[in-house]
Amino acid sequence: TEPSRLNKSFVHTESSCSIASKKDIKLSTSHLHRRVTTKVFHCKANDNLLPTCNGEITTMSFLQDVVDILLQYVVKSFDRSTKVIDFHYPNELLQEYNWELADQPQTLEEILLNCRTTLKYAIKTGHPRYFNQLSTGLDMVGLAADWLTSAANTNMFTYEIAPVFVLLEYVTLRKMREMVGWPGGCGDGIFSPGGAISNMYAMLIARFKMFPEVKEKGMAAIPRLVAFTSEHSHFSVKKGAAALGIGTDSVILIRCDERGKMIPSDLERRIVEAKQKGFVPFLVSATAGTTVYGAFDPLIAIADICKKYKIWMHVDGAWGGGLLMSRKHKWKLNGIERANSVTWNPHKMMGVPLQCSALLVREEGLMQSCNQMHASYLFQQDKHYDLSYDTGDKALQCGRHVDVFKLWLMWRAKGTTGFEAQIDKCLELAEYLYNKIKNREGYEMVFDGKPQHTNVCFWYIPPSLRGMENSEERTSRLMKVAPVIKARMMEYGTTMVSYQPLGDKVNFFRMVISNPAATHQDIDFLIDEIERLGQDL
Amino acid sequence: TEPSRLNKSFVHTESSCSIASKKDIKLSTSHLHRRVTTKVFHCKANDNLLPTCNGEITTMSFLQDVVDILLQYVVKSFDRSTKVIDFHYPNELLQEYNWELADQPQTLEEILLNCRTTLKYAIKTGHPRYFNQLSTGLDMVGLAADWLTSAANTNMFTYEIAPVFVLLEYVTLRKMREMVGWPGGCGDGIFSPGGAISNMYAMLIARFKMFPEVKEKGMAAIPRLVAFTSEHSHFSVKKGAAALGIGTDSVILIRCDERGKMIPSDLERRIVEAKQKGFVPFLVSATAGTTVYGAFDPLIAIADICKKYKIWMHVDGAWGGGLLMSRKHKWKLNGIERANSVTWNPHKMMGVPLQCSALLVREEGLMQSCNQMHASYLFQQDKHYDLSYDTGDKALQCGRHVDVFKLWLMWRAKGTTGFEAQIDKCLELAEYLYNKIKNREGYEMVFDGKPQHTNVCFWYIPPSLRGMENSEERTSRLMKVAPVIKARMMEYGTTMVSYQPLGDKVNFFRMVISNPAATHQDIDFLIDEIERLGQDL
Repeated sequence: TEPSRLNKSFVHTESSCSIASKKDIKLSTSHLHRRVTTKVFHCKANDNLLPTCNGEITTMSFLQDVVDILLQYVVKSFDRSTKVIDFHYPNELLQEYNWELADQPQTLEEILLNCRTTLKYAIKTGHPRYFNQLSTGLDMVGLAADWLTSAANTNMFTYEIAPVFVLLEYVTLRKMREMVGWPGGCGDGIFSPGGAISNMYAMLIARFKMFPEVKEKGMAAIPRLVAFTSEHSHFSVKKGAAALGIGTDSVILIRCDERGKMIPSDLERRIVEAKQKGFVPFLVSATAGTTVYGAFDPLIAIADICKKYKIWMHVDGAWGGGLLMSRKHKWKLNGIERANSVTWNPHKMMGVPLQCSALLVREEGLMQSCNQMHASYLFQQDKHYDLSYDTGDKALQCGRHVDVFKLWLMWRAKGTTGFEAQIDKCLELAEYLYNKIKNREGYEMVFDGKPQHTNVCFWYIPPSLRGMENSEERTSRLMKVAPVIKARMMEYGTTMVSYQPLGDKVNFFRMVISNPAATHQDIDFLIDEIERLGQDL
Repeated sequence: TEPSRLNKSFVHTESSCSIASKKDIKLSTSHLHRRVTTKVFHCKANDNLLPTCNGEITTMSFLQDVVDILLQYVVKSFDRSTKVIDFHYPNELLQEYNWELADQPQTLEEILLNCRTTLKYAIKTGHPRYFNQLSTGLDMVGLAADWLTSAANTNMFTYEIAPVFVLLEYVTLRKMREMVGWPGGCGDGIFSPGGAISNMYAMLIARFKMFPEVKEKGMAAIPRLVAFTSEHSHFSVKKGAAALGIGTDSVILIRCDERGKMIPSDLERRIVEAKQKGFVPFLVSATAGTTVYGAFDPLIAIADICKKYKIWMHVDGAWGGGLLMSRKHKWKLNGIERANSVTWNPHKMMGVPLQCSALLVREEGLMQSCNQMHASYLFQQDKHYDLSYDTGDKALQCGRHVDVFKLWLMWRAKGTTGFEAQIDKCLELAEYLYNKIKNREGYEMVFDGKPQHTNVCFWYIPPSLRGMENSEERTSRLMKVAPVIKARMMEYGTTMVSYQPLGDKVNFFRMVISNPAATHQDIDFLIDEIERLGQDL
């Protein structure tokens, strides 16, 4: 990845960890491979791979070549002297390579080139200086597990076709429920394609629990429902309400304090108000770890209110759920054990490869009653094994990807204590960043006090704006600072961090740390880089 | 995989294709690996892998070991002398190995053992004699592409973090729309986590198109909707209606002819009837390739009716969509170009690894209006590139797995003509099976005539039932035949094929062929095996 647009000397090459020299770590392609390449790699790809007769050698040689490309990419991902991204604008990227699909096949050589080209322009999401999303990092055992999942290529319908994975889902969900604090890990759950769908499941199940007739008769047959969530909550609560026919207007946004936590008294006030209007409150979606501030709603107070008004309590712990692994930090989720359902995405704070999101439900059997359609071609009732392991009918999906194995294998490799150490480290780094910038010239914190999660929200104030009084001009200039710095970061490819406006606050940086590869030096680098890229603004 | 429960001599070892001897194809672990193993593979897994300092060598050696295990598994998958499954009952499997999650980490050696054990009990879904689901087979380029996707470990939110994959989704969906027959490939679409979700999207968008206010106001604000689909259609239409607050009672099942095709006159009759009752018909979900019979609904006649009554026409081509790749068979989907939306799962008939399901929508922009929530932390409006490539807000999901790359790379490797050849071959095999059993003693076809897809539905009649008159006794005995044969197949591990009842028809076998590795000999084997396992019943 040569820097294309900018002076190479700007790309920092310091590294907090010396790596072995390239010639040591480049895997030589196998002896086997060299024997095969010249013969068949210029033939059409499909003609020589399995299931073609005698396709074994070519297949193994081809897959080994792909693996060699991937291993080099993986090692490079952790090398601070490489870019996070070799950025190209969409039109440039469309023109720089022929991505089109044709009638005729390509050769194996060309397929390997496609792989190299794809990786050349990919974001190195495992790079220690990639801070752009809640999901960062690349776990080696997780990667291995995902590779195995692909080779096993099955579906989570039934025990019949996914015996091991169904059992591992059972074991893993039970363990997660134990960590939530439900006695004996009892309850139900599923791995779903992402936190938004997990939250939608919770809404669907809460509605069904209160009005089971909705399944057959629809919303027309039941009273007007309302759900409650904080103004800082994830947009998927509204998205779910739109999809489920509840409507976004029926999602009432509860005010937050200055740290982004839901204010329980406002929640209670709005519940009473809704009931007075004749609406039926059916769900409170509390957030454990908001997307921007990393705030934890006061779960105990919310649980009390849900109990008082008999409302389903959901906790969206997509981002914050990982802290349950940490003896030091799990108090932030106190009260989660009183929830009726919990979303928890191991692909965020626990660093499991995408995707891995769990919905946990306290009451057993409810998901099944809510979603089952008894398809007789999948869920035959006269099979020869225990049918309680055919869990597919409780899903909204028919086919369902195997998402559990990477989490399970990582858990075996790290143990709970390994996850704990990795999470504690990320939180310690966030505190380091906070301490470093809270009083530093050129920085303003978006909210006061030590961050509760790894979210550190701040404005960088370029020299030209320092000392300027609050005014429309300052605001409108400050609004443009983060986008320009971010664009420059991407063009240089040195690091990536997210920014956004929120309410009346103009664009600010939201730093998050979920990659165990990050170090104090990477935090220092980020600060230096923001200042380097923003000083002229 | 030693046969555990049954006499080994029953496991057939014939093979239609001689394979290289095992010592030739077993990849020797690399020199690098042997140097590393003894030192660190007995240490805790997490302590020596990247991002640990100097973790490169251990990481590459570990991943190479995993790959060696996977390559052996892959090659074995195609070897007819190995079992499709080494079946164990759930309780046996739970006891045979310790699957539990603990506080303490395991060693790398133990992690490798976990991988071997998981694969030992897995179904070999690529095995040429695995016919159990609509998704079978294991494509080598698809597998390579999935491995790359895992290493790239990103999310389909935005161009910012998935530049290449967003472009490839654009290119691939446009190509698929071209094949549907929409001029210039215009329109919209998304890769979703499975056909059920794709069908749910179609229902969601159709509702929004007719009553956009439903997004904010919910079902309470709009008239009572009804949807239509055939009695042979996939259960996900009802599941979607339940989730979206429409209710399963509002899904009207249209009668099918004896081949499982929707009867258009019955559709029109039921539409008129619903309108007379004051309901609003908003969606017809036609099926191109039903799950059990493989029937294609008459799309042209259905399109005429949808046009006449101004109803959204959806085609669920999850299973049959693949036939669009075949010049010989695509006429079966004539009329699909008049649909408003199409579900098409490349992970079924095209053999792409799970999951890969596309929803295609004719009208551009509708998905975006229907689903967008404008989350400012993801979809900033002041970015430095063309924001039309930030496609995440049209999804129901927030995070979305990269499902496109495996389809794209396979399409490059095969070309359209390669997919065509593979699909034509599977259909030819189904016809071979049909011709072989239609007049064979001991077989009864569930429906008359040549199959339109690769679904061949039949009863095996054991000698004891042959010649017996139709009676309750015969029916109740016949009902038990397929389940017993299936259980025996799984215990022997020699092959797997699905069975189910349907309407008043008792359990019958539904043979489907989507694995290009299958041959005429494998079909012969299946027949021999059914007769061997069922002759005493």
